[in-house]
Amino acid sequence: MGSLVHLQTWEEKAGWARAQRDASLAKVEPKLDGVPDAHNMPLSSQDLPKAVLTPREIEITEQYTITKLLGLLRDRKIKVEEVTRAFLRRAALAQAVTNCLTELLWDEAIERARHLDSLPEPRGALFGLPISTKEHHGMVGGMGKTKSVVTTSASFVAWHGGSNLLYDTFWDQGCVFFARTTQPQTIMHLETESNVYGRTVNPYNRELTSGGSSGGESALIGMRGSILGVGGDIGGSIRCPAAHVGIYGFKPSIKRVGTTGFRTPGAGKETISGCPGPMTVDRDGLELFMKVALSAKPWRVEPSLTVKEWTPYQFARPPKVAVQWWDGVVRPHPPMTRALREVAAACREAGMEVVDWDCEGLDHEKGWDILSALYWPDGGEEVLGLIKESGEPILPLTKFIIHEQPTVKELTQHELWQLCVKRDEYRARYAQAWSKTGNGGNREVDVILCPPSFGAAIPHGQSRYWGYTAHWNLLDYPAAVFPVTKVDPALDVKDLSYVPKNSQDKFVYDMYSPERFRNAPVSLQVVGRRQEDEKVLAALVEIERAMGRA
Amino acid sequence: MGSLVHLQTWEEKAGWARAQRDASLAKVEPKLDGVPDAHNMPLSSQDLPKAVLTPREIEITEQYTITKLLGLLRDRKIKVEEVTRAFLRRAALAQAVTNCLTELLWDEAIERARHLDSLPEPRGALFGLPISTKEHHGMVGGMGKTKSVVTTSASFVAWHGGSNLLYDTFWDQGCVFFARTTQPQTIMHLETESNVYGRTVNPYNRELTSGGSSGGESALIGMRGSILGVGGDIGGSIRCPAAHVGIYGFKPSIKRVGTTGFRTPGAGKETISGCPGPMTVDRDGLELFMKVALSAKPWRVEPSLTVKEWTPYQFARPPKVAVQWWDGVVRPHPPMTRALREVAAACREAGMEVVDWDCEGLDHEKGWDILSALYWPDGGEEVLGLIKESGEPILPLTKFIIHEQPTVKELTQHELWQLCVKRDEYRARYAQAWSKTGNGGNREVDVILCPPSFGAAIPHGQSRYWGYTAHWNLLDYPAAVFPVTKVDPALDVKDLSYVPKNSQDKFVYDMYSPERFRNAPVSLQVVGRRQEDEKVLAALVEIERAMGRA
Repeated sequence: MGSLVHLQTWEEKAGWARAQRDASLAKVEPKLDGVPDAHNMPLSSQDLPKAVLTPREIEITEQYTITKLLGLLRDRKIKVEEVTRAFLRRAALAQAVTNCLTELLWDEAIERARHLDSLPEPRGALFGLPISTKEHHGMVGGMGKTKSVVTTSASFVAWHGGSNLLYDTFWDQGCVFFARTTQPQTIMHLETESNVYGRTVNPYNRELTSGGSSGGESALIGMRGSILGVGGDIGGSIRCPAAHVGIYGFKPSIKRVGTTGFRTPGAGKETISGCPGPMTVDRDGLELFMKVALSAKPWRVEPSLTVKEWTPYQFARPPKVAVQWWDGVVRPHPPMTRALREVAAACREAGMEVVDWDCEGLDHEKGWDILSALYWPDGGEEVLGLIKESGEPILPLTKFIIHEQPTVKELTQHELWQLCVKRDEYRARYAQAWSKTGNGGNREVDVILCPPSFGAAIPHGQSRYWGYTAHWNLLDYPAAVFPVTKVDPALDVKDLSYVPKNSQDKFVYDMYSPERFRNAPVSLQVVGRRQEDEKVLAALVEIERAMGRA
Repeated sequence: MGSLVHLQTWEEKAGWARAQRDASLAKVEPKLDGVPDAHNMPLSSQDLPKAVLTPREIEITEQYTITKLLGLLRDRKIKVEEVTRAFLRRAALAQAVTNCLTELLWDEAIERARHLDSLPEPRGALFGLPISTKEHHGMVGGMGKTKSVVTTSASFVAWHGGSNLLYDTFWDQGCVFFARTTQPQTIMHLETESNVYGRTVNPYNRELTSGGSSGGESALIGMRGSILGVGGDIGGSIRCPAAHVGIYGFKPSIKRVGTTGFRTPGAGKETISGCPGPMTVDRDGLELFMKVALSAKPWRVEPSLTVKEWTPYQFARPPKVAVQWWDGVVRPHPPMTRALREVAAACREAGMEVVDWDCEGLDHEKGWDILSALYWPDGGEEVLGLIKESGEPILPLTKFIIHEQPTVKELTQHELWQLCVKRDEYRARYAQAWSKTGNGGNREVDVILCPPSFGAAIPHGQSRYWGYTAHWNLLDYPAAVFPVTKVDPALDVKDLSYVPKNSQDKFVYDMYSPERFRNAPVSLQVVGRRQEDEKVLAALVEIERAMGRA
């Protein structure tokens, strides 16, 4: 493979990174048998695991909830090594069909599993649980900094030495890190494509995106090549990919989960912040992640974090739910609206008060103008500089989020202050609107139910409207996504009489045809007021119960 | 007086503002009798109230704790109007001798008091309590913007209409606003001098400063012309003035108390933030302020605030106190060290564990380099522009905090990010040092006990070292100051053998002579970890009990 420092072109450097990944995958033992070659991949990858994996591997990777699997591991009814190997092989399969990994940690994971198996007593809230992680360390998209690619591996080794607060916490609780997943150029697309690893595809339909920026995680977990992964969300990067593959995802309020040791562009930028969070196969996994992450009191190490452990919320009576049918800018596709209708009906049936969240007067479009400028107060120069340094091409969705946003420019300090004032005024106005729902003897709305995207998983390259997730980043409202249904062309017909309201609405409207999205997972989003993280997950429990789920 | 818009020079505008103030003071009835003229003012103003006010006014203004006075008002054993008039007259006296007011709210306060007296039942946690406020609205120092001076009054009227979150809360709880107090040019001196109002002096010694930037409040409360005032603190602006007049002051963690409706330079700047807080004649007033301020759930209106009501803390065993004898940069004057010794001894006597806070390795000077740059990421251009616009002179302490800090310059966005990273790294390092006190079977330190200034009240113009307060702003640690003793030349002799460590240390050392500071109040400071606001006030209770106070 050679040493990275001798590589000259971006193509050589990207090739080196892929070779590293391939070498890690070549360790899989026994080899995967029965994976179709690239030209014969089926549209959906959902039937492949049964063809490739053993019945026992299928059982381990898809027949248990996280809680159940943790119980089996704790009771030593199953070896950590057996669980780890099953997920390693299934992750390798996920990579073969969705291109979701940057590295399979074969040796490291097995060594760790054997260590855990050798302990006299099981120890830790995550004992033996395999966890996959987004490739946070190192600027993958920007290949310019030779060192950063080296650091990509070096930093990971460093996790184990104590440089990453969140992963150290999970490690201390007995988890097994076993796979690292792809992210897009700049980590600022709602899809997952980079010049290093190419495109990650949706395990339900390879012509659709698995979302982004945590789209490697979503493709992997959507294949059940992992059951709990770590993502990060500054504009939808947990929720969008989770929604597109029908898994659970949670974006906490910022400053709730630590990022010490993470490596991302824009370090020190305070205008708008992301937050790490869970992506999981089941709802309980969300709360487990938060509980464990905060039990370590991370604010004692990263002092900007909120000083509050996870404090489960219990509704004394059924929550009051406000349904946001659209955001006043872009009309969601028919399956999203059907999902809202179905869930709202179930909530009413279960005795909840359900009202409309009429946000047209709240001007979400203005919110986007503020947010898109806040993303890049340097005009995007830092990330554009990294891209330029290596000579790699700027991908279309990078152009979209920097060059095609008229608000993006390098700001003076005074312009920055003015923009932050605008942001705070917008937040205050939204808070006021929420509080007003409690006026006049009404109960205040507990949570908003809304789509996490204008549609189900989107055809590649078309994720050019962020409003359904990013608006809650602007407001710093916690939000969870959960699976509801799948696109059904018989039910989700296109409204041919609809007249789009603006060019974005038209772009989204024109994209829809039921057949194009057939069987794509459809998810919804539950949103709470700032720092009401626990209430959001409690509301999700109530809503899913209303839907007839346990 | 004429209309402001026709005024041309800064002298005319400042004269107009003073005339407004004087007109408000001319309403005092009965007139103050027996106030010495300007040339015959005694060094200390402490004996003047008895000479000028009636015995009943003395009783009302100085013989009750805040809690006791609130009880009398609630039980209607005393009229709100009588209390209000007593404080109005005493405030007018404080103005005559210390120059601490920008406006006496004679008519408004009496009207408000009469309204409260007319209510069938007393209502609110602050029923009838007179509250003084720092002149937050309008850029007093920068006379350039004609409108801002008009707004100074207009905004105040607007409080009553609902534009200031904090004052609205107090208003809803039944308080009486009765006086507004001075602040320095730029609101960024640890003294109180402006081209509008001149200099505010210390009521214990007019040759010394009352501190700043809330030095109007401290002079007023130090004269008991008020018993509860509102200050704000971004570098010591509550604690320094409170310490210099021997009253109580508390700087909460930022984002705990709201600032919606306040008008200060640098709105939208996020690098380092101030926080409003109480300045009071007794300890219970601190907690009362916080409890009432947070009971209104201000985060529902100002969404960036921490979602947490005031949650009193109770020590299960005596707190562990670490004494910071010096900050590694500037040696405190002898009375400060004596106060530390006396209080530390009392704490030990009361069964507390008392250790040293050895912070030389923590490099407080580096902290100042970061902080001073963070104060002015625009190089100070905004406030310098306001000053330039009117043509008013730049005062020496303005020059000190902007021009004489080598770190201050207009930053690019990337330089800003790098500086914020440095700040966060510094905070993390300090947090780590604090956590380490709990290693190896030791109990972790609960609070740090330290001086709130290198000395007692400082001679005018000499407040050129901020380290003893500002360091806790950099770290966002909550901190309370409390009175301990007074400078006693017999006890607080100068150490003639001391060799200063650096030029700042020399400046501070050379300033000291016992006679110069005779009888100046000496206060100390209790500091807690970020967001442990409640613990700091609980520790203050324990420490004062150890000192034999109730």
